[in-house]
Amino acid sequence: MKLLQETVLREGIVLSDQVLKVDAFLNHQIDPGLMLAIGKQFADLFAAEKITKVLTIESSGIAPGIMTAMQLEVPLLFARKHKSLTLTSDIYTETVYSFTKQVSNEITISKKFLQPSDSVLIIDDFLAHGEAAFGLARIVEQAGARVAGIGIVIEKSFQNGRQKLDDAGYRVESLVRIASLSGGRVAFVEQGAELA
Amino acid sequence: MKLLQETVLREGIVLSDQVLKVDAFLNHQIDPGLMLAIGKQFADLFAAEKITKVLTIESSGIAPGIMTAMQLEVPLLFARKHKSLTLTSDIYTETVYSFTKQVSNEITISKKFLQPSDSVLIIDDFLAHGEAAFGLARIVEQAGARVAGIGIVIEKSFQNGRQKLDDAGYRVESLVRIASLSGGRVAFVEQGAELA
Repeated sequence: MKLLQETVLREGIVLSDQVLKVDAFLNHQIDPGLMLAIGKQFADLFAAEKITKVLTIESSGIAPGIMTAMQLEVPLLFARKHKSLTLTSDIYTETVYSFTKQVSNEITISKKFLQPSDSVLIIDDFLAHGEAAFGLARIVEQAGARVAGIGIVIEKSFQNGRQKLDDAGYRVESLVRIASLSGGRVAFVEQGAELA
Repeated sequence: MKLLQETVLREGIVLSDQVLKVDAFLNHQIDPGLMLAIGKQFADLFAAEKITKVLTIESSGIAPGIMTAMQLEVPLLFARKHKSLTLTSDIYTETVYSFTKQVSNEITISKKFLQPSDSVLIIDDFLAHGEAAFGLARIVEQAGARVAGIGIVIEKSFQNGRQKLDDAGYRVESLVRIASLSGGRVAFVEQGAELA
């Protein structure tokens, strides 16, 4: 997605060869027009999948998730990383390890919002080691529902999450794919689709 | 806002005379069409205020916040409740006490995203004791910027936050105002504007 590549180049900050800071448009300050364009792109990519629900994880997945759900005219459901006072029973939980933060979170979803008849599109802001995406997919499968696909805003292709999700048979669509952050510079995976 | 009142009556669950659970459309599962309508309503209400930025707090403020920001064609900024790995210096912080959860959170905003020239619209999902709204307002004022107004999706008018914000001179617009949750029933504040 060319608009997103340009935004990453203009506003992203390479903190190390592992970490790209995107707090100017995605993770802290959010550009609504860009989120709308991202939502349209995901909705187009997964248009044939008969999606019934979009699933993401708080907090940075919510903005791209709600725009995707709006385009697909289905609800958005977001997993919580911490248990809520009013969300205490009848929940699915999975443990998700964050390599970046080096902590494990218990992510939770209320059982009443996922049915075996659901076709679920998982949306997340980043794909690195795939922990969050796999955790969300396991929750969908706990519910007996179908993972229709996984939409990622920014894929760090030099980490192993994409390969693991591909190997597990999921359809993954990443709007930008980053080959490397070496030398303080963002290099994208060379691929026709990313330049469309 | 009649659509929101109807949704609260249809989908809200009164857990106690203090707590309304809205996880079917706002706090866990989110209705994108309703969020778009909420965003339009806030944008209309504050149209004359020359808003330059919408400010909210993770996680449940993000969906109504991004829709409001989209309508106003300005960025959304969301405060984090926990410090981020990539957000470690040059931050404004305020302590916000949650009566519901009985914990204090250090909320943070990166300094680079608030300027003295900003006119900031604060958006939040709930107004109860006003702690989050005041914390966000103090951050705006730390930056030397202007609090142009505070937009609340659901106000619990039987708690004291609204009165405190009014007393402090802020312009507060709440899309629904709940007078009472007694007896397991939602009673709205009787007021022409809410029925419009």
